[in-house]
Amino acid sequence: MSTRRIALLVEYDGRRYAGSQYQKNGYTIQEALEGAISNLTGESNRVALAGRTDAGVHARGQVASFPTESAHPEDVIVRALNFHLPEDIVVRDAVEVPLTFDVRRQARSRWYRYTIVTGQQRPALQRQYVWHVSRPLDLQRMCAAVASLTGEHDFAAFSGPSSEDRTTVRRVSRAQWSREGRFLHLDMEANAFLNQQVRRTVGALVQVGEGKLSLEGFRSLVEEARPGAADYAAPPQGLCLMRVRYERELFADEEYEDI
Amino acid sequence: MSTRRIALLVEYDGRRYAGSQYQKNGYTIQEALEGAISNLTGESNRVALAGRTDAGVHARGQVASFPTESAHPEDVIVRALNFHLPEDIVVRDAVEVPLTFDVRRQARSRWYRYTIVTGQQRPALQRQYVWHVSRPLDLQRMCAAVASLTGEHDFAAFSGPSSEDRTTVRRVSRAQWSREGRFLHLDMEANAFLNQQVRRTVGALVQVGEGKLSLEGFRSLVEEARPGAADYAAPPQGLCLMRVRYERELFADEEYEDI
Repeated sequence: MSTRRIALLVEYDGRRYAGSQYQKNGYTIQEALEGAISNLTGESNRVALAGRTDAGVHARGQVASFPTESAHPEDVIVRALNFHLPEDIVVRDAVEVPLTFDVRRQARSRWYRYTIVTGQQRPALQRQYVWHVSRPLDLQRMCAAVASLTGEHDFAAFSGPSSEDRTTVRRVSRAQWSREGRFLHLDMEANAFLNQQVRRTVGALVQVGEGKLSLEGFRSLVEEARPGAADYAAPPQGLCLMRVRYERELFADEEYEDI
Repeated sequence: MSTRRIALLVEYDGRRYAGSQYQKNGYTIQEALEGAISNLTGESNRVALAGRTDAGVHARGQVASFPTESAHPEDVIVRALNFHLPEDIVVRDAVEVPLTFDVRRQARSRWYRYTIVTGQQRPALQRQYVWHVSRPLDLQRMCAAVASLTGEHDFAAFSGPSSEDRTTVRRVSRAQWSREGRFLHLDMEANAFLNQQVRRTVGALVQVGEGKLSLEGFRSLVEEARPGAADYAAPPQGLCLMRVRYERELFADEEYEDI
């Protein structure tokens, strides 16, 4: 039996977790996955994740991968892992990939969605998945501001404390607001993101919507690229990693249009 | 200071509660509201609710009302109650109504939404608000079936154990499926509902969608009106009371199109 590499499509509610990647203090998505896989394979499997999500951040379409000696068919892997995983993590699909496959480096883009709920009173429903902003927001100004994000820029201003990146240049292919009743969604897609980039972008955009930051001020954040200048990060529970794209689609039946 | 009557627009996540109405075993929405109101007024206020929701059922637009001697403006009432209420209950609006106003009898209709999530694997996100049905569903058959629900019928077949109603005849003005990605919503509106009526209707409709119950079988349930014949009730967490309608709108700014 030769070694194989398996890629998993993973959904999780991040509230109980200290983020996606292993760390000293707190239980993480990586550990939960490694525990479930080890229950299935009897091996000590190391899991790699395509997108790094902070403590409290959710995922609809995280991609994980691990090497294994086990010969289980993919559907058995899915069912067995879901049996072992807690109710706030689920493997939606599994597929065998080449042994050389690098889930992180080979990803072409990541799509994140940030959700705000407006209205004077806090929400009771959906409160696990949104940021409540009670002050009135000028969505038109917020839409005008995001236009300056697309393309290749140095996003140093939107970089969080734990960035270990050699470069802060990223290529953003989409940055777009949409409205659904009292909910506002920001969809952002880029080749990769800096630590806290989406949450700091949303924080600055909300300041624009509240009239506390001018459109020019927002554009200067992008242009001046002063490290950490956008220091108002939106809270984690509004953020969700929706999809990771590869040169070739890994999973057959992804329905990502809803959340 | 003369006695007033206040109507509240209330949203709640029903998971922690033993239903909307006061009962011996378990904490209810009514008690939570009465506690918060009493904290504000210093009185012992009895709250009436427009729709009876079972344990675990949610509400976007429940309507409550209570009499009070207090002279607080409506916006103060909203803010103070939300300060005292737990995070899974929120008062969205408050308005003074005539002293003779009966929140239950004067309601013209109730709109409930039931949400199913499809797909082989259980959901991690939104799992608090949906029923996961992993077996394939024929939505077209389920849409054909709901057509027999609209109009005035004896819904005895869909009546639950704790019905205290003298008549089981109800007038259904809307019964409609819609699809959003992997989510299916059944919107039902009627002058009033029997205990568990929506959940038992959804249970039977899922049996139709799975091919376990024929279209004719479903129609017979309605026509024969044998008490409790539709005995497969969908679980409570997929159900949400969306809106209660009155002759005149009570609240100015209800946005109910989203959830």
